[in-house]
Amino acid sequence: MQSVTQNSRAEPILSIIIGVVGAGLIGRAWAIVFARAGFSVSVYDVNAAALESAGKAIRHSLIDLQQAGLVAGVDQVMAHIRFDADLASAMRGVGFVQECGPENVEGKKAIYCELETVVADDTILASSTSGIVASLFSDHLRHPERCLVAHPVNPPYLIPLVEIVPTPQTSEAATAITLQLMEAAQQAPILVRKEIEGFVLNRLQGALLNEALRLFRDGYVSAEDLDKTIKYGLGLRWSFMGPFETIDLNAPAGVVDYANRYSSLYHQVDQQRGSDNPWDESTLKALGEERRALLPSKELAARHEWRDHRLMALMAHQRSMTEQEACDTTIRRH
Amino acid sequence: MQSVTQNSRAEPILSIIIGVVGAGLIGRAWAIVFARAGFSVSVYDVNAAALESAGKAIRHSLIDLQQAGLVAGVDQVMAHIRFDADLASAMRGVGFVQECGPENVEGKKAIYCELETVVADDTILASSTSGIVASLFSDHLRHPERCLVAHPVNPPYLIPLVEIVPTPQTSEAATAITLQLMEAAQQAPILVRKEIEGFVLNRLQGALLNEALRLFRDGYVSAEDLDKTIKYGLGLRWSFMGPFETIDLNAPAGVVDYANRYSSLYHQVDQQRGSDNPWDESTLKALGEERRALLPSKELAARHEWRDHRLMALMAHQRSMTEQEACDTTIRRH
Repeated sequence: MQSVTQNSRAEPILSIIIGVVGAGLIGRAWAIVFARAGFSVSVYDVNAAALESAGKAIRHSLIDLQQAGLVAGVDQVMAHIRFDADLASAMRGVGFVQECGPENVEGKKAIYCELETVVADDTILASSTSGIVASLFSDHLRHPERCLVAHPVNPPYLIPLVEIVPTPQTSEAATAITLQLMEAAQQAPILVRKEIEGFVLNRLQGALLNEALRLFRDGYVSAEDLDKTIKYGLGLRWSFMGPFETIDLNAPAGVVDYANRYSSLYHQVDQQRGSDNPWDESTLKALGEERRALLPSKELAARHEWRDHRLMALMAHQRSMTEQEACDTTIRRH
Repeated sequence: MQSVTQNSRAEPILSIIIGVVGAGLIGRAWAIVFARAGFSVSVYDVNAAALESAGKAIRHSLIDLQQAGLVAGVDQVMAHIRFDADLASAMRGVGFVQECGPENVEGKKAIYCELETVVADDTILASSTSGIVASLFSDHLRHPERCLVAHPVNPPYLIPLVEIVPTPQTSEAATAITLQLMEAAQQAPILVRKEIEGFVLNRLQGALLNEALRLFRDGYVSAEDLDKTIKYGLGLRWSFMGPFETIDLNAPAGVVDYANRYSSLYHQVDQQRGSDNPWDESTLKALGEERRALLPSKELAARHEWRDHRLMALMAHQRSMTEQEACDTTIRRH
């Protein structure tokens, strides 16, 4: 096997063979992601029956994706995936493992110990875990420097975000190759620079859900109206811009201007929640600098127009969905 | 003038004449919303020059909307809008006022006092304010029972969410008619049952932004990657489902099942933020009951499929946007 972490520039990234450990919901979805992008994928599960049904489930999902125009040929993608209930033979030649085992530290420790005995020393071992930082199950290994988290959103073949979370021991090369590999797999990787509970995505989701539950609990709003607030309000821009770009475009001179107008309101609300996190000036300055590096001031006006055109296109898309669903319902009734 | 709050059932809602007070960005956008839906709209501004440029700006926006297929005829919509720099004549016959004045309590108090002298006793007075509860500028009026907040997201002709926030003095009829009128205007109104600072939308946005700024400040993530986490991750489902329906579909048996799996993670993270809001059982029970009333258990599996098909369609839409933008860039370069 070629060295992955050392020869990454010489070796085309698509020639890295991907090992998927665990043929459950997440493992099957990862197999689709990598095979669809042209990688060879070897799926392992301890349970041979699970492997057989995984093959059928993957084919079923690929047919759906093909109908939506998101995959060219089902058989072509299936040809990239093999299934193997023997760990050693499944992992032969594999340069990158996406581990999708059960969500507990002891189980993961056992899997990683076993994996170390069958893969090359520099094969990257990435965990799909949503809640456990990788240092908890990799620190004891012979080669912890090739371990990290690559946390997907379910299902990753429809939601491209992947959180890459190195441990303090992870090598820069392993992190860089994982980011590069996820880009090659047409995912959208982000780098979480230091280990933190819940990573970034679930911390953001948790902050919003906590406030949502409080508003529901205290009788301010029904669950249905709470969902409407996001799906007909905040969620529209967030689906193509994210929250920082959204506020950057919500005041004429950008995000610092926005903070000058609204941060006292947000601070008051935060204090009502029993915490006290004012938006401090140096953080806002750094945020403003990064935003202006991404989008210079002279391009702000054009970006406002871009946002409105994207919103119009999204509205037109959603309207066509609603009409199509109304039509489908009518057909089913007749 | 017919009585609006008493004869609402007898009178077709579209026959209510809409008064828009203030011809700035928000006032112009509201004029588009109401006129597009078939209402007659009378736009007032103290500044006659502002009224003239408002007419041009509205026409410009309507042309954009027509190109996106979101408006049938520009002239047809323009014919529904008149402009008047005299408050008394502008508000003649108006049954619903959408006030879009400056964001300060004293200014609003003055506007509402003046409005009371020129409108009928039961004309509804709705404020576009994003930060001031209506009781602060309506309690002193002769008829505070017809005052409330109708807070839009900018621009309301592209983002349909409107927060309807009655004061303790607002009549049920005024609230009900406002909700009905916003539906007729093809907006998505929600009812915020009691006054609260920041209403619902900005409280949710603030909770997420606070956490986002903390993660950025403490070096866990770049601003660009933070935005990616939402736009390639959480924001996709939120753009057509909202956060409660999202988690309701993220565990086999629905939202209570989800909470059993993940609420301890969210609680730990919340404690790290210095607050302490566990998800309590009775709130989760009530949330579960409302969700099951909206989506019975036996329909959960079909809704999972619906979600995935909506995600696929959204991905295909976004891909076509990206291709179109790449193409536009190429054209501009040649």
